[in-house]
Amino acid sequence: MPNIIKSAHAELYRIPLKEVLTDAKHGDHTHFEVILCRITTEDGQEGVGYTYTGGKGGQAIYTLVNDEICPTLVGQDADAIEAIWHKMQWDFHYVGRGGILSFAISAVDIALWDIKGKRENLPLWKMAGGASNQTKCYAGGIDLNFTKDKLLANIQGYLDRGFNAVKIKVGKDDCYEDVDRVKAVRELIGPDITFMVDANYSMSVEKAIKFGKAIEQYDISWFEEPTIPDDYQGFAEISTALNIPLAMGENLHTIHEFIYAIEQAELGFLQPDASNIGGITGWLMVAEMAKQANLPVCSHGMHELHVSLMSSQPHAGYLEVHSFPIDEYTTHPVRLEDGLAVAPDIAGTGVVFDMTLMAPYLVK
Amino acid sequence: MPNIIKSAHAELYRIPLKEVLTDAKHGDHTHFEVILCRITTEDGQEGVGYTYTGGKGGQAIYTLVNDEICPTLVGQDADAIEAIWHKMQWDFHYVGRGGILSFAISAVDIALWDIKGKRENLPLWKMAGGASNQTKCYAGGIDLNFTKDKLLANIQGYLDRGFNAVKIKVGKDDCYEDVDRVKAVRELIGPDITFMVDANYSMSVEKAIKFGKAIEQYDISWFEEPTIPDDYQGFAEISTALNIPLAMGENLHTIHEFIYAIEQAELGFLQPDASNIGGITGWLMVAEMAKQANLPVCSHGMHELHVSLMSSQPHAGYLEVHSFPIDEYTTHPVRLEDGLAVAPDIAGTGVVFDMTLMAPYLVK
Repeated sequence: MPNIIKSAHAELYRIPLKEVLTDAKHGDHTHFEVILCRITTEDGQEGVGYTYTGGKGGQAIYTLVNDEICPTLVGQDADAIEAIWHKMQWDFHYVGRGGILSFAISAVDIALWDIKGKRENLPLWKMAGGASNQTKCYAGGIDLNFTKDKLLANIQGYLDRGFNAVKIKVGKDDCYEDVDRVKAVRELIGPDITFMVDANYSMSVEKAIKFGKAIEQYDISWFEEPTIPDDYQGFAEISTALNIPLAMGENLHTIHEFIYAIEQAELGFLQPDASNIGGITGWLMVAEMAKQANLPVCSHGMHELHVSLMSSQPHAGYLEVHSFPIDEYTTHPVRLEDGLAVAPDIAGTGVVFDMTLMAPYLVK
Repeated sequence: MPNIIKSAHAELYRIPLKEVLTDAKHGDHTHFEVILCRITTEDGQEGVGYTYTGGKGGQAIYTLVNDEICPTLVGQDADAIEAIWHKMQWDFHYVGRGGILSFAISAVDIALWDIKGKRENLPLWKMAGGASNQTKCYAGGIDLNFTKDKLLANIQGYLDRGFNAVKIKVGKDDCYEDVDRVKAVRELIGPDITFMVDANYSMSVEKAIKFGKAIEQYDISWFEEPTIPDDYQGFAEISTALNIPLAMGENLHTIHEFIYAIEQAELGFLQPDASNIGGITGWLMVAEMAKQANLPVCSHGMHELHVSLMSSQPHAGYLEVHSFPIDEYTTHPVRLEDGLAVAPDIAGTGVVFDMTLMAPYLVK
């Protein structure tokens, strides 16, 4: 029985952060944007998908989803998720191949998976692989503008909440200031807590190697985005020079970019983000590529969804619990048990927005 | 004296084609979209830039230009073209790196060059390099759906208009039908007319080699986009196997993609499009990269603008006179003299839209 799509539309929300969060290359974050995609089928099922931004581009994503893609969905079979994924990629190929199209496809794809889960009465962690309903995780700070004292207090807050892995931003103009902050965090957390750093692609290859050498002694589990994501060979140069694995993925928005990164960048961890790699379908494609390359798959952002995807995979690394608290606007904020994040047992994606909390931030 | 931007906005036009045009991967084209960007400075100068699509994505580009980028332009110095270019790339980096952002940046950048030319009283061919005011060119058919008779009549029409170089689409399911069409065109045009083919990335590497071998005998000047633009190494494999130079560029939307293509794809011709590589600034960056790699620079689409850019470069290959007749909606449609296209001597970009002709197609 086909499950025909009856209607589809988008909604744009712009939600203020409690405080300004800063990293090395995106500057100050004051808001995040959530673009919802609602799809209903002729049998009355509703699926909700979404993507998010750091505050820019949301209007264009909304327009692409609502005005250009949604009208093409009506009449299609909601169960043909992968066929719809490829159709969206090819329909918009000329203006696509990554960029805003990848965000738009993600919102649609996640809505279709939500319908599938509701129809099959399965939670996402089971649909996506079922390896477990729990995953290792870390708290990802966006804290480059925090003073050292505030940075340490923030990290202590993560430990108090039960995290046993943390990540800080680096990329100060003076990289010895970064080294000093890394040292201070390691001293605070002791030897047993997992610790990563993230430069948001702010460094030259040369600077990344210099900085990486200086922090090797602090037992760093990964060095994320040392330089621009386009420079796969630069990543390889850094990786060869350092005893710290490299990580990236949030800025790889096509499967082809991941192919090149796996082949050429000598990464230790892949970090696809279902909100910008084409949804759950795209994330699972990258997870499969990671498995074949013998690399752990991780995630970036939207932890309320990735908790299920990460749990489902046997080769999962660490779920990022991101500083954009999208989960606070859902009925099931992320929950830790003995340091592991627990996937919700709700049919569908497990992400149910609390529309009373969201409503004040509706833009259109 | 800074030249402060006072206002900026976008307009979206959707213009029907006289007949449906088809290629191997984009399907049927019934319309093209033009997104104008109008920028005015405090001293009263207006610059007009634009980008275009094959009918999809225009609404999202419009929104990105009009609602997200234009407000950030007001108060900036219109003369700081390259600084504004980089600012747009970094502001929208997370949702960007190619895709729709590259189209949006292009429209803005071209408007700034228009202002610069009007202020300096210089035509684009002089501003951009000044090598010449004429360029070799070819007629690029979008003709995969034409019967063989209609294809030949169309090519004859190009010859009658004074073209001495032509390109046809290939990519039929049965590639021997393509071979037969190539043979028929070569027989029609005789040995002295330059002849290219374009598969719109529809073939596997294997099929492209098989097809390429079969048409080598017909003196083909380039084989454009034999396979997907992301597969640089696949291009190299095809290039090594064939005695026909390969060409691509219309689907490379970042400087980094061109870097990889130059390094890895073993191309014979680079075909950047100022409407999707970041405007005149982006096109000139690629032209410089082509010069350093000892490759001719060509163009794709919007010939009414590229005629000036191509003329300006000492290492220009062939200007594509494209089948989307944007120039028919301007005051200076492309003009041939002895088979060469002539750049207009108008201060600014040389592209002046006839708003009486455009008005019926305004969407918003």
